[in-house]
Amino acid sequence: MRIDKERIQEKNQKELRSHREKFDFLSNVLVKDGCNVHDIIDKLAEFQVAIPSWALGAGGTRFGRFSFQGEPSTLEQKIDDVGILHALTQTAGAISLHIPWDVPQDYEAIKQLAASHGIVFDAVNSNTFQDQKDARESYRFGSLSNREKAVREQAVRHNLEVIDIGNRLGSKSLTVWLADGSNFPGQNNFQNALQNTQDSLKDIYRALPEDWKLFIEYKPYEPNFYSTVIQDWGTSFMLANECGDRAYTLVDLGHHLPNTNIEQIVATLMMKGKLGGFHFNDSKYGDDDITVGSIKPYALFLIFNELVYGMNNNPQNPYPAWMIDASHNIKDPLEDLIQSLEAIQEAYAKALLIDQGQLRTAQMENDVVRCQEILQNAYRTDVRPLLQEARRKGGGALSPIDAYRTLKVRENLINVRGRNSVASGL
Amino acid sequence: MRIDKERIQEKNQKELRSHREKFDFLSNVLVKDGCNVHDIIDKLAEFQVAIPSWALGAGGTRFGRFSFQGEPSTLEQKIDDVGILHALTQTAGAISLHIPWDVPQDYEAIKQLAASHGIVFDAVNSNTFQDQKDARESYRFGSLSNREKAVREQAVRHNLEVIDIGNRLGSKSLTVWLADGSNFPGQNNFQNALQNTQDSLKDIYRALPEDWKLFIEYKPYEPNFYSTVIQDWGTSFMLANECGDRAYTLVDLGHHLPNTNIEQIVATLMMKGKLGGFHFNDSKYGDDDITVGSIKPYALFLIFNELVYGMNNNPQNPYPAWMIDASHNIKDPLEDLIQSLEAIQEAYAKALLIDQGQLRTAQMENDVVRCQEILQNAYRTDVRPLLQEARRKGGGALSPIDAYRTLKVRENLINVRGRNSVASGL
Amino acid sequence: MRIDKERIQEKNQKELRSHREKFDFLSNVLVKDGCNVHDIIDKLAEFQVAIPSWALGAGGTRFGRFSFQGEPSTLEQKIDDVGILHALTQTAGAISLHIPWDVPQDYEAIKQLAASHGIVFDAVNSNTFQDQKDARESYRFGSLSNREKAVREQAVRHNLEVIDIGNRLGSKSLTVWLADGSNFPGQNNFQNALQNTQDSLKDIYRALPEDWKLFIEYKPYEPNFYSTVIQDWGTSFMLANECGDRAYTLVDLGHHLPNTNIEQIVATLMMKGKLGGFHFNDSKYGDDDITVGSIKPYALFLIFNELVYGMNNNPQNPYPAWMIDASHNIKDPLEDLIQSLEAIQEAYAKALLIDQGQLRTAQMENDVVRCQEILQNAYRTDVRPLLQEARRKGGGALSPIDAYRTLKVRENLINVRGRNSVASGL
Amino acid sequence: MRIDKERIQEKNQKELRSHREKFDFLSNVLVKDGCNVHDIIDKLAEFQVAIPSWALGAGGTRFGRFSFQGEPSTLEQKIDDVGILHALTQTAGAISLHIPWDVPQDYEAIKQLAASHGIVFDAVNSNTFQDQKDARESYRFGSLSNREKAVREQAVRHNLEVIDIGNRLGSKSLTVWLADGSNFPGQNNFQNALQNTQDSLKDIYRALPEDWKLFIEYKPYEPNFYSTVIQDWGTSFMLANECGDRAYTLVDLGHHLPNTNIEQIVATLMMKGKLGGFHFNDSKYGDDDITVGSIKPYALFLIFNELVYGMNNNPQNPYPAWMIDASHNIKDPLEDLIQSLEAIQEAYAKALLIDQGQLRTAQMENDVVRCQEILQNAYRTDVRPLLQEARRKGGGALSPIDAYRTLKVRENLINVRGRNSVASGL
Repeated sequence: MRIDKERIQEKNQKELRSHREKFDFLSNVLVKDGCNVHDIIDKLAEFQVAIPSWALGAGGTRFGRFSFQGEPSTLEQKIDDVGILHALTQTAGAISLHIPWDVPQDYEAIKQLAASHGIVFDAVNSNTFQDQKDARESYRFGSLSNREKAVREQAVRHNLEVIDIGNRLGSKSLTVWLADGSNFPGQNNFQNALQNTQDSLKDIYRALPEDWKLFIEYKPYEPNFYSTVIQDWGTSFMLANECGDRAYTLVDLGHHLPNTNIEQIVATLMMKGKLGGFHFNDSKYGDDDITVGSIKPYALFLIFNELVYGMNNNPQNPYPAWMIDASHNIKDPLEDLIQSLEAIQEAYAKALLIDQGQLRTAQMENDVVRCQEILQNAYRTDVRPLLQEARRKGGGALSPIDAYRTLKVRENLINVRGRNSVASGL
Repeated sequence: MRIDKERIQEKNQKELRSHREKFDFLSNVLVKDGCNVHDIIDKLAEFQVAIPSWALGAGGTRFGRFSFQGEPSTLEQKIDDVGILHALTQTAGAISLHIPWDVPQDYEAIKQLAASHGIVFDAVNSNTFQDQKDARESYRFGSLSNREKAVREQAVRHNLEVIDIGNRLGSKSLTVWLADGSNFPGQNNFQNALQNTQDSLKDIYRALPEDWKLFIEYKPYEPNFYSTVIQDWGTSFMLANECGDRAYTLVDLGHHLPNTNIEQIVATLMMKGKLGGFHFNDSKYGDDDITVGSIKPYALFLIFNELVYGMNNNPQNPYPAWMIDASHNIKDPLEDLIQSLEAIQEAYAKALLIDQGQLRTAQMENDVVRCQEILQNAYRTDVRPLLQEARRKGGGALSPIDAYRTLKVRENLINVRGRNSVASGL
Repeated sequence: MRIDKERIQEKNQKELRSHREKFDFLSNVLVKDGCNVHDIIDKLAEFQVAIPSWALGAGGTRFGRFSFQGEPSTLEQKIDDVGILHALTQTAGAISLHIPWDVPQDYEAIKQLAASHGIVFDAVNSNTFQDQKDARESYRFGSLSNREKAVREQAVRHNLEVIDIGNRLGSKSLTVWLADGSNFPGQNNFQNALQNTQDSLKDIYRALPEDWKLFIEYKPYEPNFYSTVIQDWGTSFMLANECGDRAYTLVDLGHHLPNTNIEQIVATLMMKGKLGGFHFNDSKYGDDDITVGSIKPYALFLIFNELVYGMNNNPQNPYPAWMIDASHNIKDPLEDLIQSLEAIQEAYAKALLIDQGQLRTAQMENDVVRCQEILQNAYRTDVRPLLQEARRKGGGALSPIDAYRTLKVRENLINVRGRNSVASGL
Repeated sequence: MRIDKERIQEKNQKELRSHREKFDFLSNVLVKDGCNVHDIIDKLAEFQVAIPSWALGAGGTRFGRFSFQGEPSTLEQKIDDVGILHALTQTAGAISLHIPWDVPQDYEAIKQLAASHGIVFDAVNSNTFQDQKDARESYRFGSLSNREKAVREQAVRHNLEVIDIGNRLGSKSLTVWLADGSNFPGQNNFQNALQNTQDSLKDIYRALPEDWKLFIEYKPYEPNFYSTVIQDWGTSFMLANECGDRAYTLVDLGHHLPNTNIEQIVATLMMKGKLGGFHFNDSKYGDDDITVGSIKPYALFLIFNELVYGMNNNPQNPYPAWMIDASHNIKDPLEDLIQSLEAIQEAYAKALLIDQGQLRTAQMENDVVRCQEILQNAYRTDVRPLLQEARRKGGGALSPIDAYRTLKVRENLINVRGRNSVASGL
């Protein structure tokens, strides 16, 4: 199923006059303040965020899962869903697959389908945190860090298969996230577990195609855990350095202890050329994986301030891979993703509004009040007309949630897929 | 299946001499310091902790569940498991049922089975955090707090049924834990949700038999949540006061924000006569539900210090209901529970060693160093011989984990129940 | 020293045209969306925040204090400083005194001075967390909770004196904040300390003039602490209930454990008619007392959403007392306060934009996506023109920080007071 | 002033018989379990912890300082105080100086005085977090990270002077702790601040004598802060690697975000050969700097488990520098330090009791229950007789706090120094 682009244009038509007025007014104000509005809109249009295949169905908790109707149950349907998101938002031009949930049957057909939606294949994700059917070894006591060589080898092998699958689809990077760790003090020898993880990652790194990157994710805890093998950015950074130049740290917003200054971690990693990728979500208490920007939008803005600074000033750092990593337990997953994409673009647009020259001057003069004024001036600006203009120019919807509802997308999906379709994966 | 008590005695026989030596030596030391050792051993023997029926099988995470072999799959088998625990430890003389997972078919038979193990029925637990098969209404958007009257009424009705079931078994209290809350700002009207919760709880309270108590649990968050309707002891305390004299707050160790001073909450509630029950577990990061005493044994000791003080000085507070509320994802559930029971008894024994008179004097003199010395003197004492003596006198095992393994309990359970038995519930 | 209002108007004149354009454009947009803009501007104009006398000088840390030049060293100068803030922002129409730092010599003169600035006397604050010169008893081991009756009586007496001073100035409320607690487990008997606190507060409450209110502040910890006697809102609420109808809880934004859902506490207190006052500040890690809105502006907006809801729907709750409670270690205190006032007004204005009717409908339909859209729609609006219009109408500055700098206020204060003036207090 | 060793022996004499009984009984038990008790006692005797000169007086908070009578007001008196601690505990055989608070007048005399107490000079500590009298540049906006070259150079120069002073006294390491950071978002350019810090540290490192080490401390926050330049071990580790082989990370127990798994950080650093030093203290909420082991003794034990493992298995890591870094606001500083030393030795002794061979076996068999049993078996042992024996053999007091009070040490200090002596420094 795909969305009819003309229906989007018809929908836009009704809002166009009001949009023009707001956009023109804002443009004038910004131009007077010295902003290059066209440049900002071009940057917004270029900014594309990968949608992970597992985020298209309802997520669950330990108590169960309230399934959402019309969920995609095949890889083709997942690509269709991302296609819908991209048609509406013009920001979701990539999909991130998870193996073994998304192994293609017919690679060429899948590539053509994705291309027809204007979607590329971003980082592929391996899974060694769940036992697969018919697997010889269990990951109950860890995968890449496991005490048993046979388990580690199986986990490494799985990663190589994932690389192979990704390679055939055009992906250029592998993301490794581990649920390895321990539930109790004494259960693990920390040093051995870390050494095993390092050795396994090196094995994977050695098998990486020359134009690929390896992203190493970190996370301080999982429910019921006492420790994780890669608990923080420092451990990931150390492991990436051990692997080599094409190994990088991946930052997931939810994977931090309370009160962590994440924007400073971003700045440090970019300065050292080691920020490989970014997973967006939001949270109030732990790794809640809720809609981006729904809890701490200002923190997101501060992070984008560092990302924009790094993209402009750190040629040593590659262009990061962007992905939303959220779980949708109570909202329509596609609506939730639209809200997340909007929040990401908003934070990016506001960060682009920061006058870096003035900020630099205020910093050099230790004018702390002025530094804050400059950040808040950008943040307080209502940038929605800029986002809308960037979407409009690409053929997307001025108001994606409205359009999604008006065009009855979910109803159509249910018609095609049925009420009880269930997404594979989480 | 039940454990042969003579086999326990045989096992004890081999350790008896060594135990006697240690116990006699410790007794002498303690008696010289003014302790009434017999009194402590009597109190340890009296102290009984309820085992929740759902803790006897392996727990799971959002990624799945690694099942443990020989799990109990019927209520009878669950009672047998608690019987095994009680035979070994002499501390697990109660079971806490969870409805609808544990609805008896034949009440008399169940009561006789429990009695034959020396086990009573402690608080019964309702479940309005999962949708039941064939239920008319869904708890997706809350139960006792739900906007829809029909949902609230269904949830209240369920609690009344739970009371009825408990009443027929001899239980004297109902524990209400809610997963009600919201995932996003704005989703809930906080005031309405609280008012609905209060009204529903009052409806339940009114239906309580005269000799029953209502326990209201609190919890600040669940994964993916933005708010819970009963986020802290203050809210629970307020609701209990609204309900009436026989409504109480229930404290679960894992249900607190980082760094909360739980022992002070315990003291406050006992002073106000409102501490109804206690759920034991331990955690490092969130509500981890791991083995009691495995992470913060000193905090547990400080809590028991307040409990002992309250039991001695607060006649206005009823004797609290004790229960272990843990999840066993990686250990044999019965071994895990034995470790938890040991940790609870250890903390209790050490708290009993505190010389309350001396502590009072040191406090009145603002001799902070001495206050700490008194607490640490008790805590540093190796009280295991006292625990062993209390168990031994009741016919339990000197070394329960050892006995469990030597007597090949799990192997026998697997023989009887099969490898692939699965516990109902979580 | 006072600010020349005509100079403010001159300054405004240059920005007026640009302001008009922005304000008119925004007004049109909002009116189309069904907003009553005039009503919002009236509410903004009415909203007045008290400035605490101790916030007008530089704050310090345990390592020392970097003093700011031209600080007010007398009560008269402090009132002048608030007068300057009020002239510029039209939002700082009250001062909150701290005794013994601010005991007036000549009450009539002080009242006239304040009146001439359009400033009233808000809640008075007692100080039993520091020993006063020549005091007979020390608060080293607590004040209202102290084991010694003589100490408690001295502390109660001090509060009565503070009430007396406040009464002579026209204040109508007393704020009690305690640094009472313990540094080590065992040091305090929690129950006795709480009982003493309760008794002392009742003594103070009994002496309260009939038209006065008592505000009881809570706080979970201080540096080096193990416990505080009033650790959370639940304890404060309980104490307020014990005292009587005119005793209330006071919420300070920085006085919470990590991740606390403060907006829900606000909603609960207002529903129960017990939210007496509010202290604004912001923080990233602990009780950092930094500029309001500098770290978590969205959380502040969510709190204001509850405040607005409560003010409209909870006649049982009195109009709360608003105060900024921040510490200025690195910024000019007056500039810092201007930024704080702006952030408070911004959050209030955005909360006023929320369409409560639509929100209610979306909530009743469990349309979680729409609920979030409604909140974010209000939050994303750039409300600065509304704030400016409210200030302009009252004679304040369109751009207060700019005006403060252009009019060289600090330079003038230094000329009058000298470089090395030091504020009394913290 | 120094303590008369014969008086300690007299005091011991009265407790000796009871001690012998307890020690002999425990020894027998441990020997049966396969422990080498003599080896443990030798290790305890060898283990020496440095006392920082600033911990000998009362610490303060932002509200003031309750001074303790008889505080040392000169470097000579500070050394005397450490001498007293060492005489009583036989564990405090080193002092850690802080410059500029402790600049010697007569190096030879100071060295002789220390030697006469059996005390060596451990790491020296620089201070660039406070402005010194007559300093040309201010550290208000940072020291080693400052934007101004002149400030950075002054801070580097100060460190070189500290090295010089330490060198003349026999110290072999420099500890750098920075209060550099920012109070507000935008105030600092993170990348520049980090680059400046790195360059400054390299300047210091280059000036280090060949047999010296550089310790780089990290800390996530200070009160009123938004960021610190060295926020975590990862940043410190990165900086140490940039400096060179003799630069190391220093871990302070209080310098972590809530819930951090510190023992894993210790294991990682030792595996990489980069754990240089360790600062002991304890805390419940933030960086509380209270008595070691007073809040989380089990966490301390788990950390010592990693330290013992690393000292046995990581030849790549130097022997770490041990220091207590606590603040004494409410206890007699010397008594507080005695309690801290006891807690450190207790944790060390218990960690030495862990049967590493058995633990390894249990880990290899994934016997998680057994792993926990092994740790808890060691932890639950009452090791006080071992500590006492180690002290006794060295001539120290069986019960140091008791001896301190019986010998009226504080009274004597007051007699000699007066009631109102005030320690220099914090």
